[in-house]
Amino acid sequence: MTTETNRRWLLVSRPQGMAAESNFERGDEPRPAVADGRLLVRTLYLSVDPAMRGWMTEDPDYVAPIPLGSVMPSGGLGQVVESRHDDFRPGDFVSGLLGWQDYCLTDGRGPAPLQTFEPVHALPTYLGTLGGTGLTAYFGMREIARPKEGETVVVSGAAGATGSVAAQIGKILQCRVIGIAGGAGKCGWLTDDLGLDGAIDYKAEDVGARLDELCPGGVDVYFDNVGGSTLGVLLDRMNRWGRIAVCGMISGYNAGAPQPGPANLFRLITRRIRMEGFLVPDYAPRFKEARRQLSAWLATGALRSHEDIREGFESIPGTFLDLFRGGNTGKLMVKLADPPLRTG
Amino acid sequence: MTTETNRRWLLVSRPQGMAAESNFERGDEPRPAVADGRLLVRTLYLSVDPAMRGWMTEDPDYVAPIPLGSVMPSGGLGQVVESRHDDFRPGDFVSGLLGWQDYCLTDGRGPAPLQTFEPVHALPTYLGTLGGTGLTAYFGMREIARPKEGETVVVSGAAGATGSVAAQIGKILQCRVIGIAGGAGKCGWLTDDLGLDGAIDYKAEDVGARLDELCPGGVDVYFDNVGGSTLGVLLDRMNRWGRIAVCGMISGYNAGAPQPGPANLFRLITRRIRMEGFLVPDYAPRFKEARRQLSAWLATGALRSHEDIREGFESIPGTFLDLFRGGNTGKLMVKLADPPLRTG
Repeated sequence: MTTETNRRWLLVSRPQGMAAESNFERGDEPRPAVADGRLLVRTLYLSVDPAMRGWMTEDPDYVAPIPLGSVMPSGGLGQVVESRHDDFRPGDFVSGLLGWQDYCLTDGRGPAPLQTFEPVHALPTYLGTLGGTGLTAYFGMREIARPKEGETVVVSGAAGATGSVAAQIGKILQCRVIGIAGGAGKCGWLTDDLGLDGAIDYKAEDVGARLDELCPGGVDVYFDNVGGSTLGVLLDRMNRWGRIAVCGMISGYNAGAPQPGPANLFRLITRRIRMEGFLVPDYAPRFKEARRQLSAWLATGALRSHEDIREGFESIPGTFLDLFRGGNTGKLMVKLADPPLRTG
Repeated sequence: MTTETNRRWLLVSRPQGMAAESNFERGDEPRPAVADGRLLVRTLYLSVDPAMRGWMTEDPDYVAPIPLGSVMPSGGLGQVVESRHDDFRPGDFVSGLLGWQDYCLTDGRGPAPLQTFEPVHALPTYLGTLGGTGLTAYFGMREIARPKEGETVVVSGAAGATGSVAAQIGKILQCRVIGIAGGAGKCGWLTDDLGLDGAIDYKAEDVGARLDELCPGGVDVYFDNVGGSTLGVLLDRMNRWGRIAVCGMISGYNAGAPQPGPANLFRLITRRIRMEGFLVPDYAPRFKEARRQLSAWLATGALRSHEDIREGFESIPGTFLDLFRGGNTGKLMVKLADPPLRTG
């Protein structure tokens, strides 16, 4: 369905501490006209990611600060509805930085160039397991964590979009995999549906004590999505020559002031640990290779994709905030519209 | 000179917080008799290293705890005075874990096997630049930090035994090298004698502000000997794809309670930093290669060896404590005796 109005959520203030709905305001406009060299994309699904909390700050370290009053950026899937650009045709499925709006007017370039794709799997898969979070898990495991067959892998935020894929890749690579997540429901999903070897409910259990039970031989790889005190608990349990893939630190994203790091970084020395951060855009030249592998694992059932799909434009800010309450299982996204044009 | 008494310093208590002379007590004994398969080494020089503070604890993570009442272990250089061991002859120069004593009775094996060497350089060089600290600097730079020509390298504890060699290796590898040390005297030595591009006196200057002046293009490699707040200051100034070689954390070794880590570990992600700990014994199979390279650099003058040599058996505990007051420049050691037998 196409409309004459472009609904938009603008970033109007930067959070101090926990992000809030009041950081966003509606700023609707008429559906934009398309000039030469440009195209208009109708948003179908918007990605909701912890990293977006970092985008809201003034710190230019991660991405250039978003000017206040502009559309909140966000990855998304859409379909081209108008094109005066040689590389795109109406009906093309695209993924890219569409933003919290119905229509994205673009020249297809920018820091995250628009990608076209032919859907083989269900559409939401291209925003999750075959999108940024799946690719993050793939390169984080393959290039940073590099688990070897038989090793013990622990994943925090294991029920999240990236964590759930990282944990399953650990299983595919023949590792023993333990997930840490919040709540019995998520933990049950990790062991029963995803086939992990164990799950720890950090909201109800003592993570250190449970790790001691579940990983009596120590931990070789820690895929960290949360940072905070859990990192210190893991450092005490890492084996020699262990690897910590530093993917995210969601526990600190909404803290009003910087949180101190773990008091046992000395373990890095005594246990010869490599702790390494990474960002998935660095691997863009290899996205095609990664998607091919992830897609093959999906096809055989070795990898299961799970999306937590919320509905409607109004729900976007609330859905984003739900991330930090641990409200989602699997890839969180918002559906704005059904494919309005041809689908293949 | 050989004697009939074996003077010994025993570890009699474990420090809580700052180590103290009262942790050690004299426990002299008669010079030991030598049974078949053993040899007796007369200690000439004893190494005094920050890592020894870790050996004094009960934490088995680093090395097996030293039993209370036994001789304080310590690297050293000596000469064989008696041998009933096929591989060693009286007069042989050896290095190994001799301990705080005049005579070490050994079978030549153990966790750090006794090594014989033919002195080409001055004897103390074999305990410093060609000993454990020089090898630590070599492998830490070559294998962990891996600086590339033209990069900016910062070394903390730069006037220490390991730091001063690491910093000079940085210069040899054609990097811009900034040292951090305590006191104007040490800083002058780093720039004037060792040829570093800059030095920061952390006791008198604001390390962050001075780094901003001296490294306007950021820092590519941080060779960390101190940990603590300096690590956080560096994390804020690391370039993308920077490397932190975690060699030591002397700032925390004598803290009564664990000190919190830096509050900006998130930089590891946004700047894709690799932070990696290491211990030099892992590289034992390559010590010969490393010593050959270090020796060649010494021969050409590209690398300068500097030892801070204290005299006399009584001074050992006080010399050890002086490390944590920053009392030394270059490799700290205690001389117990002049070579008593043939010297070549």
